[in-house]
Amino acid sequence: MVIVVKAGGRLIASPETRSRILSDIARLADSGEKIVFVHGGGDIVTEYSRKMGIEPRFVVSPSGIRSRYTGPEELEVYVMVMAGKLNKEIVAGLNHGANRAIGVTGADCSMLLAERKKRIIILNEKGRKQVIPGGYTGKIKSVNKECLDKLLEQVNIVVVSPLALGTEGELLNVDGDQAAASIATALQAKTLVLLTDVPGVILGDKVLEKIPLSQAETIAKKTGYGMNRKILMAAKAIENGVGAAIIAPGNTENPVTRALRGETGTRIEP
Amino acid sequence: MVIVVKAGGRLIASPETRSRILSDIARLADSGEKIVFVHGGGDIVTEYSRKMGIEPRFVVSPSGIRSRYTGPEELEVYVMVMAGKLNKEIVAGLNHGANRAIGVTGADCSMLLAERKKRIIILNEKGRKQVIPGGYTGKIKSVNKECLDKLLEQVNIVVVSPLALGTEGELLNVDGDQAAASIATALQAKTLVLLTDVPGVILGDKVLEKIPLSQAETIAKKTGYGMNRKILMAAKAIENGVGAAIIAPGNTENPVTRALRGETGTRIEP
Repeated sequence: MVIVVKAGGRLIASPETRSRILSDIARLADSGEKIVFVHGGGDIVTEYSRKMGIEPRFVVSPSGIRSRYTGPEELEVYVMVMAGKLNKEIVAGLNHGANRAIGVTGADCSMLLAERKKRIIILNEKGRKQVIPGGYTGKIKSVNKECLDKLLEQVNIVVVSPLALGTEGELLNVDGDQAAASIATALQAKTLVLLTDVPGVILGDKVLEKIPLSQAETIAKKTGYGMNRKILMAAKAIENGVGAAIIAPGNTENPVTRALRGETGTRIEP
Repeated sequence: MVIVVKAGGRLIASPETRSRILSDIARLADSGEKIVFVHGGGDIVTEYSRKMGIEPRFVVSPSGIRSRYTGPEELEVYVMVMAGKLNKEIVAGLNHGANRAIGVTGADCSMLLAERKKRIIILNEKGRKQVIPGGYTGKIKSVNKECLDKLLEQVNIVVVSPLALGTEGELLNVDGDQAAASIATALQAKTLVLLTDVPGVILGDKVLEKIPLSQAETIAKKTGYGMNRKILMAAKAIENGVGAAIIAPGNTENPVTRALRGETGTRIEP
């Protein structure tokens, strides 16, 4: 049985938080857990884009959501930072002292196949709707479960960068939460842990300890965009066979262990 | 039985040559061959270093050999270009239409463990010998054969970027020819193919068709530095059980197939 852990870009950008998460994952792996670790890294991609003279572009959806725009130049930096710098720094750290990890992207062994978003609707500077080419962003359509299974026979941790293979053989930027939820579903993981920079799902001034699956949609509507998506993805993963999902803070000591023990975060379960 | 193919940075930097090599490897894989493909990429690392405002540094050894100096900033670009951009572009291309490849570095599953060169002797600007810190360059000490075997059970092509794991958990730049020869030896490959931008081992104005192992050292001495090293590494791999080694041109149609058939290049055999 596998645990799928995802850590967002803000957590990865802090060396201290990153190191806490990785130490915890290494310890869990050494105690025999099989882990797929999906990392984000958007903030670091932005930093390196600027170093290379490419000003990051963001677009705003009709519902007001701001997201990164990935043209060919942006994709190149995204691949270099995600699959190069971050994936290999993480793997090298995890393999210090013991052989624990192998690092891949969704393009490797065609692990994540995605469909490119051909066109997207954005709000232009005048606040009017406009259709533009979708760039190199994709939506995950399938997971090569067998490849992940085989990798997890060899090592206890598979580190996955959020990149997928498109139908034309192109690399595509995919959402890290979606990658983690898709992988958890394909592997029928026992737990999906989504680490964030907040303490969990917050309603009013209270962190919810649990969300019954039946209430996920109602509660999701009361939260902000990013959290809303996380709750709905987690709920869908559970409907499709994942044991439980926890939305938990990443910036504590032993963040994964504490979330698994129910000490932190918000647990969504069947 | 495995074929190990290495293609140097100049070949990889030419889109046309790269595409010829990859098409040929894909075809061989589709006919059932198991291939480890080690890619170079020094010229592209230099290009991206400059884009990021890092002027590449080169050092000259007492015997007059010029080589790249890898400080921490240079290592970062090296990792981003090799393990990120090149490895994933190559893997995505090979996986277009069929699941053929998985891409890794020597840090993944601790595949290549290396010892960092603590100090190196260089000639300084005044032509005097000087000892400087070795930077992030390593010499390969061991290969995780089992990991490579398992990956080759899953896919027909494993793409390897020339990076290794150091004893402190650090990433190290390693020589591509050395990586290929070490892997070929560990796997007891049937053939090691070193693709270059020359037609093979040239003596006078003639490309040698074959070099008997017994003459490798003598002939190596009569060639330039890069070729000298390639011949000695190939010879050592054969002494240690590799079936044959071919130093062959990469910029032809079907460069690997033609080399394997004996139509191009210089073959070193027991």
